[in-house]
Amino acid sequence: MNMGIVIGRITATRKDENLVGFKILITQPIDVQENATGQALITVDMAGAGIGEKVIYVSGSMASRATQNKDAPVDAAIVGIIDTIDVEMKFGGKD
Amino acid sequence: MNMGIVIGRITATRKDENLVGFKILITQPIDVQENATGQALITVDMAGAGIGEKVIYVSGSMASRATQNKDAPVDAAIVGIIDTIDVEMKFGGKD
Amino acid sequence: MNMGIVIGRITATRKDENLVGFKILITQPIDVQENATGQALITVDMAGAGIGEKVIYVSGSMASRATQNKDAPVDAAIVGIIDTIDVEMKFGGKD
Amino acid sequence: MNMGIVIGRITATRKDENLVGFKILITQPIDVQENATGQALITVDMAGAGIGEKVIYVSGSMASRATQNKDAPVDAAIVGIIDTIDVEMKFGGKD
Amino acid sequence: MNMGIVIGRITATRKDENLVGFKILITQPIDVQENATGQALITVDMAGAGIGEKVIYVSGSMASRATQNKDAPVDAAIVGIIDTIDVEMKFGGKD
Repeated sequence: MNMGIVIGRITATRKDENLVGFKILITQPIDVQENATGQALITVDMAGAGIGEKVIYVSGSMASRATQNKDAPVDAAIVGIIDTIDVEMKFGGKD
Repeated sequence: MNMGIVIGRITATRKDENLVGFKILITQPIDVQENATGQALITVDMAGAGIGEKVIYVSGSMASRATQNKDAPVDAAIVGIIDTIDVEMKFGGKD
Repeated sequence: MNMGIVIGRITATRKDENLVGFKILITQPIDVQENATGQALITVDMAGAGIGEKVIYVSGSMASRATQNKDAPVDAAIVGIIDTIDVEMKFGGKD
Repeated sequence: MNMGIVIGRITATRKDENLVGFKILITQPIDVQENATGQALITVDMAGAGIGEKVIYVSGSMASRATQNKDAPVDAAIVGIIDTIDVEMKFGGKD
Repeated sequence: MNMGIVIGRITATRKDENLVGFKILITQPIDVQENATGQALITVDMAGAGIGEKVIYVSGSMASRATQNKDAPVDAAIVGIIDTIDVEMKFGGKD
C-alpha cells in the first residue's frame, strides 16, 4: 500500500454502474517526509476520508476487494486514515 | 484509476475473438492540471467515450471485469466520463 | 493494452510445461508516433504475429487468460495485429 | 519479490476492518548492495519483522494471499526475513 | 515476461511457510543486447536455473501459478532458460 493525501474529487455522471454510489477522490501520493511524489490518481474512498487527510491506499485488484462489490472496476481505493507516520530509522545505505 | 483524454482509435481486424465488438480507443493519460503525462495506451471503451473527452480508466485485471466478459484479455478500460476535476487543495509538501 | 512491434523471438528448450507449444516473441513497445519506447519484453503470440508487425499486447494476469490455458504462467500476450493507429487529436495540455 | 529494510510503522485507527490486527510497517526498498532505491511503501508484516531488519516483500494480489484473509485489501506484504544476500556474479552487460 | 540473468541467491530462514522448499534467486533484468537494466529482483526458480544463466521470468500473480502452490505468495518466478535471443529487426522508429 502507499501513502497519499486527498486533494480533490472527481465528478462523473456517466460511468460504469458498479461505480455508482462511491465517493471518488483525487489522491496525491506522498513519501515518508510527506512530500508529494509522482502523479495524483483517482481513488474510491472506503474509509470516510476528507480533503487534506493523509490516507493509506491500495492498488490493483485488491482495491476492488475493498469495495465489497466484486463487479466494481476499481484499481485504487483508500482503506485507512493515517494517524502517524513513524520513521524510526533513517536509511540511505549500508554503511 | 487514472485520468485520460481520448485522442484516437485503433483498427485491428485480426484479434482475439473476445476483443471483437469492443470500441478500442487510444487514451492519453493526463494529470490534474489536464496536461499530458506519460505514454498513450490502448483502452476498451465501456462508457461511450468520444474523441477529446476526459475519461476515467481502470488498469489491470479489473479492466477486464468492466467488460462483463470474463474471457476478454483487457488490461485497460474506460469506465467513466469526467465532468469536473476539482482540486481543492494545492499540495507540494508538508510545510 | 499497449502497442508494440515484433522484433524477434526467444528460444528456450527448458521451460515450464505450460509454456510448451507457444510462439514466444520479443516485442518492442511503441508510442502513437510508432517510435520505440522503453524496454522490449517477452510476449506469447496469440494472434499469428510476424516479425515487423505492429501489435496490441496485453499485460498482467489477463495475458494468461488470452492463452486459454489457466495454468500458463504468462504475463504478456499479443492479442491483435494493428491495421491502423488513428490519432485524431494532438494533445499536449489544456492551454 | 523485492528486498527492503523496515524503517518505521504507520498508525491508522480508522481503517478497513480486514486490516485490523495486522502490523503495518514502512519498508524502504533496497538493491543488492543494500542501498535505498525508490520510495518507501506500506507493508503488512507476516514474518515478525522488526525495525532495521532486511526483508523480502511481495507485491500485488499475492500479498493478500500471504495474509491468509481473502478479504484483506493488501497489495504489499513482508513474507521473509533475509539472512544473507549472496551476489555470486557481478553483471553489467555482455561485453 | 522479461529476460534476466541469475546473479545470486537469498537465504531467509524465517519466511512464509508456503515459500519453504523453493530456491530463491536474485535475477538481474537484461535487455535484448544482454545489458543489465533496472533493479535486480527476487525470483522463485521453477526451471532449474543456475548462476549466470539467462532466464525468462514472469511477474505478478501469474508467477504464483508457476509454483503450482496456490498459497505461495510469489510475484516473480523463473519459468524458462533462454537458449537464444534472436533480434531479427533493429527498430528505433518509423522514419
